Formats: sequence, structure tokens, C-alpha cells
Amino acid sequence: MREYIDREVLEDLAVGATMLGAGGGGDPYLGKLMARQAIGAHGPVRLIQVEELPEEGLVLPVAMMGAPTVLVEKVPNGAELKRVVDAVETWLGQRAVALMSAEAGGINSTIPIVAAAELGLPLLDADGMGRAFPEIPMCSMSVRGISATPMALSDEKGNLELIETVDNAWTERLSRTATVAMGGSSIIALYPMTARQAASSVIAGTMSRAIEIGERVRTARERGLDPLGALLETTSGRLLFRGKVADVLRRTVEGFARGTAKIEGSHEDSGHSLELEFQNEHLVALRDGEPLATVPDLISVLDADTRTPITTEGISYGQRVEVVGVPCAPIWREPEALEIVGPGYFGYPFEYSPLQEVEA
Amino acid sequence: MREYIDREVLEDLAVGATMLGAGGGGDPYLGKLMARQAIGAHGPVRLIQVEELPEEGLVLPVAMMGAPTVLVEKVPNGAELKRVVDAVETWLGQRAVALMSAEAGGINSTIPIVAAAELGLPLLDADGMGRAFPEIPMCSMSVRGISATPMALSDEKGNLELIETVDNAWTERLSRTATVAMGGSSIIALYPMTARQAASSVIAGTMSRAIEIGERVRTARERGLDPLGALLETTSGRLLFRGKVADVLRRTVEGFARGTAKIEGSHEDSGHSLELEFQNEHLVALRDGEPLATVPDLISVLDADTRTPITTEGISYGQRVEVVGVPCAPIWREPEALEIVGPGYFGYPFEYSPLQEVEA
Repeated sequence: MREYIDREVLEDLAVGATMLGAGGGGDPYLGKLMARQAIGAHGPVRLIQVEELPEEGLVLPVAMMGAPTVLVEKVPNGAELKRVVDAVETWLGQRAVALMSAEAGGINSTIPIVAAAELGLPLLDADGMGRAFPEIPMCSMSVRGISATPMALSDEKGNLELIETVDNAWTERLSRTATVAMGGSSIIALYPMTARQAASSVIAGTMSRAIEIGERVRTARERGLDPLGALLETTSGRLLFRGKVADVLRRTVEGFARGTAKIEGSHEDSGHSLELEFQNEHLVALRDGEPLATVPDLISVLDADTRTPITTEGISYGQRVEVVGVPCAPIWREPEALEIVGPGYFGYPFEYSPLQEVEA
Repeated sequence: MREYIDREVLEDLAVGATMLGAGGGGDPYLGKLMARQAIGAHGPVRLIQVEELPEEGLVLPVAMMGAPTVLVEKVPNGAELKRVVDAVETWLGQRAVALMSAEAGGINSTIPIVAAAELGLPLLDADGMGRAFPEIPMCSMSVRGISATPMALSDEKGNLELIETVDNAWTERLSRTATVAMGGSSIIALYPMTARQAASSVIAGTMSRAIEIGERVRTARERGLDPLGALLETTSGRLLFRGKVADVLRRTVEGFARGTAKIEGSHEDSGHSLELEFQNEHLVALRDGEPLATVPDLISVLDADTRTPITTEGISYGQRVEVVGVPCAPIWREPEALEIVGPGYFGYPFEYSPLQEVEA
């Protein structure tokens, strides 16, 4: 089990986290730079398992909220991370014993590393999604009945909001409007919980898993082996489609990057087309109009040349791509979970059909 | 000097506060009912002067925020008032020694009475406007450099937000979007300050003044005298226009009740017309297109039969009305104050021209 996150693993982590980001979670390059700088200044971050924490200790996930398209232009600073952690700690009258990643995707896998390095706290080897999702209640903690509040938000100007709500749908509503008012993105701390609560509600091992994905792809490449094969093997994923990006429609609405990307097939998919629809993350992949993969399973787009994942804001006309599907964490296939992350929640008229059975 | 607010003075207070509300501040009838109930349950509220408070004691204004049109349909409950006061107290680690009215208008003159009765605190005989204004920074405390934050907001469902901002313009922006997200109105506590700060920044005596206005109008009527004359004498106001409401345009935009009311002149104003433009409160009165009175001076509309003030949401076609202008509190005529409450701030192309000189 990995015990530290140092600068050497950041490259692998960025690749793995972007893969788990399912197209969302923000720019991995920016997050990697920030984490490298923070570790350089404060030393490696201790990666900790939930069993190692005191049962009543406060675990606090931190993240960036907003449209990835905006995140690229609004670089967060360390002061915001300290401000939101301080705010929740002050409100609860309890100091955090560990920070955590709320979602594994892109920049939200590295933001907690920056915070942990700057605040001198360990990072729990876990996240709340096993991937990235666009909305606050789409966390395993929410499925297990844990409140997302008290939640703190801050912007780069120094504004702070602390929110306490009657349910996590209200948390989403109030924090989303606050994030939009703050300019489209914010730094957040949310889902404060005891280590005991974390033990039964978080998705364990996600940080290690992201690093492992990046590591396996890199070593395959170094050994002259097929990095795609290594990726699919590590993630239990499958190749869904190959082709060229023919059309991208992207707009930022209500704090989300929404849009579609159309891919004209090549190789065995020649003559067919795939349409990807996204809300920060890819929601559905439609092959000739029929659902091929849907939330909560992960849909990721790889550059066909480099076999590195492309985020939804990185997709552009003419790219040759490979679209990969990866089974989601088991919790998302529970009926109550599908109500908040299944295709129906996002307005699609079809049921969730699992991408492939996950081996235990 | 009045020392208590009991149920007997609420009727006079409601009339005076609606007059000072300049058309805004919410439904006075609703506020009166709430205050009557709270005083009935907890006893009269002690009205206190700032000199009577310990210099370092925390003074906390409370109010309702949002479009008056919405307030009418969303009755607040005592739990929200306790929640916002508690939130600011907890954040500051200090208990309030007195509550205060943020603005003298309509429901916002009685909401603090409800809070004071329920929380067993005295009420400072003051407010932050000497009238009602539509935005958070339009407070005498803001002119004197006091931050509106930490500010707490809550809705009737039980959601809570605590806001800390870099300036009061950001407070307005973040609290306004939060209020809109909460359904169009919220209960707020803001501008926490020491009694020493209050001494040099609040508008003293506003509660007594509002009660006195209502009292003078009532006693004039009881003695068969002209209530309008009594009103103008008490407020140093003047009659601006008489006529009949010919047209009202009202819409709720971004959390504000905006609109215009057109009045066709009668009596000595026959053949002329007056246009009132409002954003919660009346902003300008244009006689035949020319400014007759503007913010920060008060523009109030009275029912010509009863001589009682009508709020902007109460104006309707066919009403026979008298439009009255009242000089604002002296602080609003300072150049820095006019920048945030003068006609220019609201987008009008003309300068502020004082309604009449205020005698010292």
C-alpha cells in the first residue's frame, strides 16, 4: 500500500485521475503543477487508510467546484484551501485529522494534495465517487445518509460562504448559485464526517487506484507494450469506439460545462457514429443513436496517438480518439444510488444497463 | 424617550415605518401581526439607547431580505431569526447585547421586535437607513466603513448561509443570489458591530421617530385635525403631487420588485402627470418627465382617503393618492454616501437635488 504522495507519482496520478474523471474534474496539468509546488514547499503528503485514524477524528473532503472551462482560467491559491478548512473546523469546533478527495477526477484529485501539504495533514486514500460527477449529492457519503454540510466555499478574492442545509439537494442548489456568483468556480470543503462514518461510506483506495492506472499505462509504454491494453486491464474497462471528432458543441450554463461531441467511426467502427453528451463529465455515449454506455459507468476519451485521456474541455475537432468505458464503483449500482446518478436523473428516457459485471 | 415597545404602539409604529419605508420594506400588516404575537408570548421589548450599552457589547441588526412581493407570501417564523442570530454569534464567539433594525421600512421595523422578544434581548432605538433602501451596502454603517459581514441568511425550510466578504458590494452580490436561491426572501443578521462602533455609525432614534409619526397622524385624526398636515410637520415633508393611479407596471427581477406607477394629476396638479419608479422602494418621482424628488430623499404614497401610506406592492389602478417627499437623514447627503444611494447609482442621468434643507 502506498504511504506517501511525493512529486514522482504526480505524473501517474494525473493520468489515472483524468481517466477516472470521465472527461470532467478540471485540467489535470494545472492540478499537477499546483501539487508539485506544494509538495516541493512542504514535503510529501502522507497517504493514510481509514483504519489508521481515530474513530471520532474529523475527515474533511476538499475540492474545486464549478465548470472545468472556468477552472482553467481561475487558478486557485493556497489561502482559499486553508480558509474553507478553517471555516468548517471553526463551525464544528473540531480540527480535521485528515483531508480527502471528494472526487477522483482531474484537478479534484490533486487539490486535496495541495491542501494536505499546505496544512500539514494526511490525506485519506479514498474519494466520494470513484470517478467524477457533476453535482454535490452524487457522493457515496450522500448515499449513506451523510450531510454535505456544514460546507464552506471560497473564491480567489477572499470571499467565504458557510452553508448548512436541510438536505444535500439544497446544498447543491445553494452552493451552485454561490459558485456562479463567485465567478464560476470556488474552492470547497464539505461532507465533514468522523473516521467511523468514513469507514462505511467512502470509496476506499481511490488515490492508490488512480496512481496505479497511470503507472501501468506508463510502464507498458516504457516496455514497448500496448498502453491501451494495460489501461483496460487495470480498470476492467472496454474499448467502446474509435474514430475522429467531427463536431463539438460546448457551452457554460448555470455553472456547468454542457455539450456534445460527435465522433465519426474508423477501423471496425467505420460507417458508424458516436455521440457523447456531457455535463462537466460524460453522461452518455450513443452509438448511432442507441445508448452504448451511460452514467454511472465511466466514459473516457483517449487521444489515439498518445493514449492519454482528454477532458471534455480538451476535446476538439479533428482529434483521433478512442472511447473507453469503465465499470463504476459497486455502490453506484444500488437502486437508491441510481436514482441520483443514473441516466434518468439527467433526463434520459432509458434505464441504466451495466457496462459489464464487476468482479468482486 | 420611549423605553419599551408594547402591543399598544405597534399600530403607530406600522404607520410610521411604512411612511419611512418609502414604499418598500414589505407588508406592514404582516409585520405588525408577527410583532403582536411575539410580544404577547414574551412580553414588551426594551428599547435601548446606544449610550446604555457596554462599549464592547455586540449590536446585531436583523432583517428580512428580498422582494416585498415575495415576502407577502412567505411568512417567516421565529426559528429563522434565532438561527441567524445564533450563527453570527457562534462565528464571532460573542453573544449580542442588543438587536437592531437595519432599515426602518415596513416589515423590517417589526422583524427586529419579533427577534428581540423571542431572544429576550433589548432593541437599539436606531436603524441603518432612517428609511428603507433596496441594497445591503446602503446602510449608514457601510458609509462609516463597517463590514456587513459576517452575515447570516436563513429560509423558512431551515437552510442557513454564513457569508464573509472582502467588501459590502460582494456581500450584496452573494447574499442576493443566496436569497433568490432560497425562494426570493430570507431572514438575515448582518453588520455585527460593537456599541462603540454603533454610536458613530447608526441613525439614532429611528424606532422612536417611526412611532411618533404614527402617533401624531393618529391623534390628529382623533381630534378631527388634518392627518396630512401632522404627517408633513412631523417629518419635515412636503406634498409633491395629488392624483389617481393610472398605470402600474411591476415585475420581480433578480430578487427585486421593480416597476413604475403613473399618476394622473387632480386638484392643483390637474393636467399634469407623475411617474414613480421603484426598486422595492421609490427611487424617483418625475413630474411631466422632470425629477421632482429622488433618492436618497423619501418618496411616499398615501391613500388620499385614509392618509395611510401604501407600499409599492400595494399601489393599484384607480387609487386616489397623495405623494409626499421627506428629506433623508443628513448622512445620505454626504458626497461618499450619495455615490451609493444617489440617482446616479441607480442609473439616472441627473444629479441629486435636495428636497428641502433639513433644519439641524
